[in-house]
Amino acid sequence: MQVGRIVGTVVSSQKDPALVGMKLHVVEQTDLMGKPKGFHVIAVDSVGAGVGELVLYASGSSARQTEITRDKPVDAVVMSIVDSITVNNELLFCK
Amino acid sequence: MQVGRIVGTVVSSQKDPALVGMKLHVVEQTDLMGKPKGFHVIAVDSVGAGVGELVLYASGSSARQTEITRDKPVDAVVMSIVDSITVNNELLFCK
Amino acid sequence: MQVGRIVGTVVSSQKDPALVGMKLHVVEQTDLMGKPKGFHVIAVDSVGAGVGELVLYASGSSARQTEITRDKPVDAVVMSIVDSITVNNELLFCK
Amino acid sequence: MQVGRIVGTVVSSQKDPALVGMKLHVVEQTDLMGKPKGFHVIAVDSVGAGVGELVLYASGSSARQTEITRDKPVDAVVMSIVDSITVNNELLFCK
Amino acid sequence: MQVGRIVGTVVSSQKDPALVGMKLHVVEQTDLMGKPKGFHVIAVDSVGAGVGELVLYASGSSARQTEITRDKPVDAVVMSIVDSITVNNELLFCK
Repeated sequence: MQVGRIVGTVVSSQKDPALVGMKLHVVEQTDLMGKPKGFHVIAVDSVGAGVGELVLYASGSSARQTEITRDKPVDAVVMSIVDSITVNNELLFCK
Repeated sequence: MQVGRIVGTVVSSQKDPALVGMKLHVVEQTDLMGKPKGFHVIAVDSVGAGVGELVLYASGSSARQTEITRDKPVDAVVMSIVDSITVNNELLFCK
Repeated sequence: MQVGRIVGTVVSSQKDPALVGMKLHVVEQTDLMGKPKGFHVIAVDSVGAGVGELVLYASGSSARQTEITRDKPVDAVVMSIVDSITVNNELLFCK
Repeated sequence: MQVGRIVGTVVSSQKDPALVGMKLHVVEQTDLMGKPKGFHVIAVDSVGAGVGELVLYASGSSARQTEITRDKPVDAVVMSIVDSITVNNELLFCK
Repeated sequence: MQVGRIVGTVVSSQKDPALVGMKLHVVEQTDLMGKPKGFHVIAVDSVGAGVGELVLYASGSSARQTEITRDKPVDAVVMSIVDSITVNNELLFCK
């Protein structure tokens, strides 16, 4: 999984029927301290995350292993909201 | 998913039988404002998108999760036409 | 899918039994005008393409969705021979 | 698979129900001598690895082929702890 | 598939039970003449290849389509030993 921050939303009225009702987050990939890396991915939400939150997202077929995304044409899903990240006993990020 | 703009078409008469009748879009990857990034992917259309439209496309096995692409040898599908993209309460793109 | 040109062949006598009889093309990735990008992939042929032809190839699990490649350990397949590519009403490539 | 070192942990209380109880390692990709490459991935543990250990991790759908990760929305798994790496008869890494 | 040379071995005593008995090759990605590109992947052997040999390896879910790797948490497999590579009628590599 990669770490990213939810920074926005994509609105789409004309889409694959399987996607109706799904929230499409703009997720900006970040480093482990939450600093932006300048790369974005559009991901479906499976955990009720909101704008500003640091999250983990899974890509590829793994993005379809949630109740919301199963068998749907989506390749990225937010599957966890990050509370904290610790590296070498140092707290790099805390919500 | 990634954001891109449909900029053209690939025509192919000799192809895998499973692909007959599929529309092959040239999709140029863009940033969240619709500005080209100089990278192209050829994607099948599942939503009736046309040249010039900003879209989302899914890659890998997820590209096969639409009625049109199921079990077919395609690794990219346009599954949504973008109406608008909002980041940090700012409207970056509006159709 | 990506655009590429078939530029050569890999010969292998010792290989996974599932691969016996498969043609292994050297495909050079190109831009939309057929200009080489300096990146190669080895792909199985499913459409009878020959050296010099511009083709589309699919990657990952999608490469296994042809009659020839089903359930085989291959991650790239040539699934279409390109007749023409049109971008912004300009003909970039014509066979 | 890629070689990496477990350098930390991600804590998350709000996550996909399928992920409850899973340990989320911060894995830093390394070269074959264990020298950091500056790229991190968050991976689930399937072998009881601890912080500081050099490991192999698998990505994509292959990350779901362990007892712990089957059918779960995870795209990276630590599936092996490295004892040693030998290249051209030279021992590059030894635990 | 990509071309690479087997340059070494990873030894691991603590690993996912499904991996017991599998040979883990260090494969260095090469160009079509066998010249190293400086990028390594750890791949399972399915064809009895040895150190020094030029091989093809498949990645992702396709790496699990051999008898040895089926349903196992591995994302790269050596599935062919290269005899020769010919590009534009020129023999770039011969065993």
